[in-house]
Amino acid sequence: MAEVRNKRVVLRNAPSGPLKESDFEIVVGSSKLEVGEGSGAVLLKNLYLSCDPYQLSLLTTPGSAVPGLGVGKVVSSSHPGFQKGDLVWGMTSWEEYSLIADPQSLIKIEHVDMPLSFYTGLLGMPGLTAYAGFFQVGSPKKGETVYISAASGAVGQLVGQLAKLHGCYVVGSAGSREKVDLLKEKFGFDDAFNYKEEPDLDAALKRCLPNGIDIYFENVGGRMLDAVLPNMNLRGRIAVCGLISQYILDRPEGICNLMYLVRSRIRMEGFVWADYYDLYPKFLETVIPHIKEGKIVYVEDYAEGLESGPVALIGLFHGRNVGKQVVVVSRE
Amino acid sequence: MAEVRNKRVVLRNAPSGPLKESDFEIVVGSSKLEVGEGSGAVLLKNLYLSCDPYQLSLLTTPGSAVPGLGVGKVVSSSHPGFQKGDLVWGMTSWEEYSLIADPQSLIKIEHVDMPLSFYTGLLGMPGLTAYAGFFQVGSPKKGETVYISAASGAVGQLVGQLAKLHGCYVVGSAGSREKVDLLKEKFGFDDAFNYKEEPDLDAALKRCLPNGIDIYFENVGGRMLDAVLPNMNLRGRIAVCGLISQYILDRPEGICNLMYLVRSRIRMEGFVWADYYDLYPKFLETVIPHIKEGKIVYVEDYAEGLESGPVALIGLFHGRNVGKQVVVVSRE
Repeated sequence: MAEVRNKRVVLRNAPSGPLKESDFEIVVGSSKLEVGEGSGAVLLKNLYLSCDPYQLSLLTTPGSAVPGLGVGKVVSSSHPGFQKGDLVWGMTSWEEYSLIADPQSLIKIEHVDMPLSFYTGLLGMPGLTAYAGFFQVGSPKKGETVYISAASGAVGQLVGQLAKLHGCYVVGSAGSREKVDLLKEKFGFDDAFNYKEEPDLDAALKRCLPNGIDIYFENVGGRMLDAVLPNMNLRGRIAVCGLISQYILDRPEGICNLMYLVRSRIRMEGFVWADYYDLYPKFLETVIPHIKEGKIVYVEDYAEGLESGPVALIGLFHGRNVGKQVVVVSRE
Repeated sequence: MAEVRNKRVVLRNAPSGPLKESDFEIVVGSSKLEVGEGSGAVLLKNLYLSCDPYQLSLLTTPGSAVPGLGVGKVVSSSHPGFQKGDLVWGMTSWEEYSLIADPQSLIKIEHVDMPLSFYTGLLGMPGLTAYAGFFQVGSPKKGETVYISAASGAVGQLVGQLAKLHGCYVVGSAGSREKVDLLKEKFGFDDAFNYKEEPDLDAALKRCLPNGIDIYFENVGGRMLDAVLPNMNLRGRIAVCGLISQYILDRPEGICNLMYLVRSRIRMEGFVWADYYDLYPKFLETVIPHIKEGKIVYVEDYAEGLESGPVALIGLFHGRNVGKQVVVVSRE
């Protein structure tokens, strides 16, 4: 049976404190190119790997390859649902080849005319997160105001474009001038600001959203959330997707303005994409035509080669990525 | 035109820091016993006045009588909707007689066979707050677990009894052994604890609610909320009625555990009774038969005489009341 080299990004130790490069190491092994008959398994050649904040919670098993979502090509299958050559996305590992023992959760890619890397972002988990969070949790109405933090990220850039297509007034924040320019010029946000250049977040929100906020798509938490709460309109909704500013702190910052939940009758709701998985076909049906017509665009930040994975993942927590952070293992 | 003495509780100065007795003074004036023809006004004799935490936000106008909800009897009316002798509840002032210039918002009491003081509590604003918060915001299902803070208060005691009648497992907390006994023995809670005697709130919650919390009826905020969040079950609901522990602090305590909103897909929603006012007739239809059958009981804490109002109101913020705090101005 043919064997190939299989490079892997392995967790050296369970991280304590902020993630650092030394928490990872590159290990070169080998992999058989065929799965055992009757095993029900699938062997994937990983093409694109996704860097996502939630992965931090998965980095618990030293010695194993980093788990994460990715796009791959089936090299060998003993599962009736998959054939050699199929393109799929789903949970895989940070290595060149992954044996997926239980491939049930892999999703076959039907629309292969889209850039395959999109299935780590725009057409994958972040895309469905944006769609479900905005429409299901946010309950938007035409003409409402929408504010998005981490707005140029994997999820935020799509939320903003969906909100514009829905007839909302859309404002985003991000952590550099380059990202703010993207929001205004590429993604069509009505306004945007660089939170790092605003000494007073409340003043920045009042300047960009003088009529208040109907929907806040929350990606960051911390002092941004405290600044948003008093600026929420009556019966506003906060869709809590993540709190990335807090993940690398030893102790989260305290939120002091929750009395506005009562004062303004705010609904604040956490969600994860998996709860809305049944919407995935409808999501693709909605978004793919917009992509083809150029009404939805997407910015990706490629890290070339498996070896670049750790730095790319760490960079997420410091806002170093511009757009969706992807690790390119192989382009075919 | 006949005149009577009219004693009033007047705000001496806008309070800074925690409320104190010296913020109020008793002023004796007089009042005409008839309203002008064609004025559309109503003259009320105030019978029972309600002490409620939200009143803190209304104490802004030195020299005026303290505003608040109360039960009164119409002494004179030039409004077609009200007649001399009608019993009503609604916004009035802390004085013996109140001229209500715009009586539209007064609610005529139809069920006069109930104790009149109940219209400051069980059958008034706190009652509808409990009903709407539990059923509309909490979305309870039979068999779910419900946790209520400030559970022996004006709202909490009814929430617990409604939850029991709905088939839920109900736990409450309060700030004294006497109150905890009330919860377990009078209101039929399944379990209860005195938060002041628990060095570790998380441990107390895990002890009383080993299967986690499906619905948290939030009355207090602060460190209790931080202890509750990790104990919430998947898709739990937090109905935010008030955050009384925070109202007398210069700066609210920070809430650090909001990441559980995402992890457990929690919905947290602030509400006020006025948004559910259309449910009031249905609420009365539901609750009054239960009261008559003894399935719902209610504990009130009477402060006798208008002069006792300031101390009673201040006591709310220190948990001195046992049950609904009422100021009795006159029993007829």
